[in-house]
Parts: sequence; structure tokens; C-alpha cells
Amino acid sequence: MNPKEPMQHLVDVDGLRAALEAFAAERDWQPFHNPKNLVLALVGEVGELAEIFQWLSPAASAAAASNPDTAQAVRDELADVLLYLVRLADVLGVDLDAAARAKMRTNAVKYPAERFRGSSRKYDTP
Amino acid sequence: MNPKEPMQHLVDVDGLRAALEAFAAERDWQPFHNPKNLVLALVGEVGELAEIFQWLSPAASAAAASNPDTAQAVRDELADVLLYLVRLADVLGVDLDAAARAKMRTNAVKYPAERFRGSSRKYDTP
Amino acid sequence: MNPKEPMQHLVDVDGLRAALEAFAAERDWQPFHNPKNLVLALVGEVGELAEIFQWLSPAASAAAASNPDTAQAVRDELADVLLYLVRLADVLGVDLDAAARAKMRTNAVKYPAERFRGSSRKYDTP
Amino acid sequence: MNPKEPMQHLVDVDGLRAALEAFAAERDWQPFHNPKNLVLALVGEVGELAEIFQWLSPAASAAAASNPDTAQAVRDELADVLLYLVRLADVLGVDLDAAARAKMRTNAVKYPAERFRGSSRKYDTP
Repeated sequence: MNPKEPMQHLVDVDGLRAALEAFAAERDWQPFHNPKNLVLALVGEVGELAEIFQWLSPAASAAAASNPDTAQAVRDELADVLLYLVRLADVLGVDLDAAARAKMRTNAVKYPAERFRGSSRKYDTP
Repeated sequence: MNPKEPMQHLVDVDGLRAALEAFAAERDWQPFHNPKNLVLALVGEVGELAEIFQWLSPAASAAAASNPDTAQAVRDELADVLLYLVRLADVLGVDLDAAARAKMRTNAVKYPAERFRGSSRKYDTP
Repeated sequence: MNPKEPMQHLVDVDGLRAALEAFAAERDWQPFHNPKNLVLALVGEVGELAEIFQWLSPAASAAAASNPDTAQAVRDELADVLLYLVRLADVLGVDLDAAARAKMRTNAVKYPAERFRGSSRKYDTP
Repeated sequence: MNPKEPMQHLVDVDGLRAALEAFAAERDWQPFHNPKNLVLALVGEVGELAEIFQWLSPAASAAAASNPDTAQAVRDELADVLLYLVRLADVLGVDLDAAARAKMRTNAVKYPAERFRGSSRKYDTP
């Protein structure tokens, strides 16, 4: 990835953004949907996602979306995190595609492939 | 929203999914990207998002994405949550668009507009 | 543990509770310390704790508090979670010792040792 | 608080630490209780705590531990966060009292009362 090149569209969340806006409007839920409340709701969903994995072995974790005991819960919780993230970005007026493109460019500069190959480097000695 | 009707495409995250896969492959980071690690990374980013808002007033929270003191951090942390969410879904083999469509249908049944208007009802007496 | 027996004192956090109250008072930080803000702050600290472990192997995770690369961060983030938890409980007027004793009794009833030996049972088939 | 003075004992969590160790031993749960799993469990409980507050008004949040609709849930989730935090610290071999004392000293140096009075200063212009 060349950080100087313009990057193409990475995500399109506008259908979900509009569906969530309509869903909230139909229920008069807009007053509840301020940023702090939505961050707390996002935290709640990430917590439910974490609960699925907390006692699973690495092998069971890798298979969690195909194992019938956990597959539905995995899909539901990933979806819930996405729903609140898209709603939060909308309420804040943030374009998630533009934000993701900018962050990918930053990451490409921050973690040059040749220097970070095979290492997360965090907490590694220099 | 009619829960019995097929719902159209809500999100398209494939560009980001592919970009993250390539980013990890170029750095040999795939071994780090197992579900538990990615959930922990997602938690870390949600934590950074929460830190932006923790001491802000409701008014300052609403303006966080336009206030120059917080705008860049808000965009970056929303993007980071999205990046890890899309990477986690990819590693697990979950189609986020299908999961979001299924969850929106479930929510439409669970929260009928006429019964939940203006109330989250959670912890309300029946 | 006999759930019918009165359980002794499990934690004493009053020294920290008083120190945090004085710390906030000396800085006029009480107006910031409402429950939602403190939950967000707690989330931020749990996120920093998660970041320490996110890319560590199981072996490195187990040694994180003795490895000089991570030991200080582990102690600091565990402490920060405790600080905000104790402050949040204080602001809400919750006695953490009583709450912990009640929860241990509930857990003893919910997870009888003979039936849950060696299994978290969550997502296990009955 | 004088950062150069030795600080007294701030918390005593040893009763709970020992009770949790016995609880895990009686169920052969020690293999599940590695640091990553316990961080994920802690995240799950913080998520449940956040869910209590997510749609509450500031006034309802402040009264959450006395309102009969939420009081039990508030006590339970605060306790659960404490339980996993104490168990995690034990598994890692961290003395929470020493860690809390060290962190309070650091905070006293980092946030001098006279300079931070009435301001969290984070994201404030200097």
C-alpha cells in the first residue's frame, strides 16, 4: 500500500446507517442515542462478544462461527458491535469509510512491512 | 421495516477486509490474528474510544467529532474499532452484511415500534 | 463454602475509597465523577489492560507480571481498574465487600462443585 | 497526600483472593483461569455493568444503586468486576494493594492538585 496514493473506497455502511436512523426515528429513540450512551452500548456488545470466547480453547475459538453451539451468538454479537459503531459514527457525523482509509494510511507508515515482519514489536526491546 | 421481506444489502466491507488481510500477510501477522487476540485488540480500541468521552459534558460529547481537540482522535478510534471488527469477522468466517441484516430483522420483531416508542423499556416495570 | 453460612469479610477497600475521595476533592473533580463517566473511565482502563495481553502468547501472558517488559504496565493497569471500580462503587453508594459476599453465595448455588467440575458448561450441550 | 511518604495499606483483598482460589480448585477450573481468559471475563462483566447505565439519564444513573429496578444488577456487576479483577491479579502474582499504593503515588505526582483543580485537562489546550 502506498501511503501517498489515494486509496479507494474501503467500506460502504450507508444502507445500515440509514436503516438504523429509521429504526431509531420510528421508536423516538433519538434522545437516547447520544455519544456517551452509544459508547456504553458498544461496550456492552463487545462484552457479550468477549463472553463467548472467554473459556474457549484456541481451537474452539477458531471454530466458534461454525460450531452450532456458538455460531448464532458469534454472528449476533459481531452484528451488534457493528450496529452500534455505525450508529455512533452517524450521530457524531463521522464518515467511517474516510476514517478507515486515513487510518490504513497511518498504519502503513507506522508499521513498515520490512521492519515489523513477524513481530508486533509492542513491548519488544528495540 | 417488514421483518418478512428480504432486506437489501446493508454494508459492504469487502475492500477493508481485503486490505486488512493483505496488511497482515505482508507483515506475517496472521499467527497473531486469532479470535481471542483480536477480541482483546477490539477491547483495547473501544477503551481508547471511551477515554475520549469519559470526562466530556453531554454537549462536548455531541461536538467531539467537530471540536479540533478531539476530532482526529474520534475518527481514529472509530476507525480502529471498525478495522479490528472487520478483521475478526474475516478470521472467524462471518459475513458481516448477512449478520447485520439478520440482526436488524430480529430487532424489528423484538422491539415493535408501537410498543417501544420513546422508551428503552429495559428495567422499566411492565 | 456453605451458602447458608454467614460469610466473613472478603475485602476491605475503605483505605482506597477514602484516598480516592480525598484525591477528587482536592482537585474539585467530584462533578466529573458521575456513574456514566466512571464506567467509561473503567472501560478505558480495562482496554489498556487488554492491550498488554492482545498479542502475547499464552506462555508470555502467564509471565506478564514478572517479565520486565510488561510488569510495570500490568501492575499499573490492574491498579487503575481497581481505582475506578472502588471510586464508582463509592459514588453509587455500594458496599463492595457486601456485594462480593452476596455474589459468592449466588455463585456457590449456581455452580455446584459436583456438577461443574472441569467444565464451564457455557455452550456445552446438557 | 505526600508522594514521598510511605502510604498505608489501601486495600485488603486476601479473603476474596483465597475464596476465589478455593472456588476454582473445587471445580477444577484452574486450567480455564489463564490471564487472557480472565481479561475476557473481566471485559464481559464490565460490559454488563455498562448495559445497566447505557440508556439511563444522569439522574437515574446517580440513583441506580437505590432504584429497586437496577440496585441488584448494579451490586452484582460491580461484584463480578471485582471478582475477576482479584482472580486475575492472583493468577498473575500481582499484589493489588502494593499496585494501588504505587499508582496513587504516581497520580499525585502526575496531577498536582493546584494545577488540575476543576479540570481533567485531557484535550484542554495548555
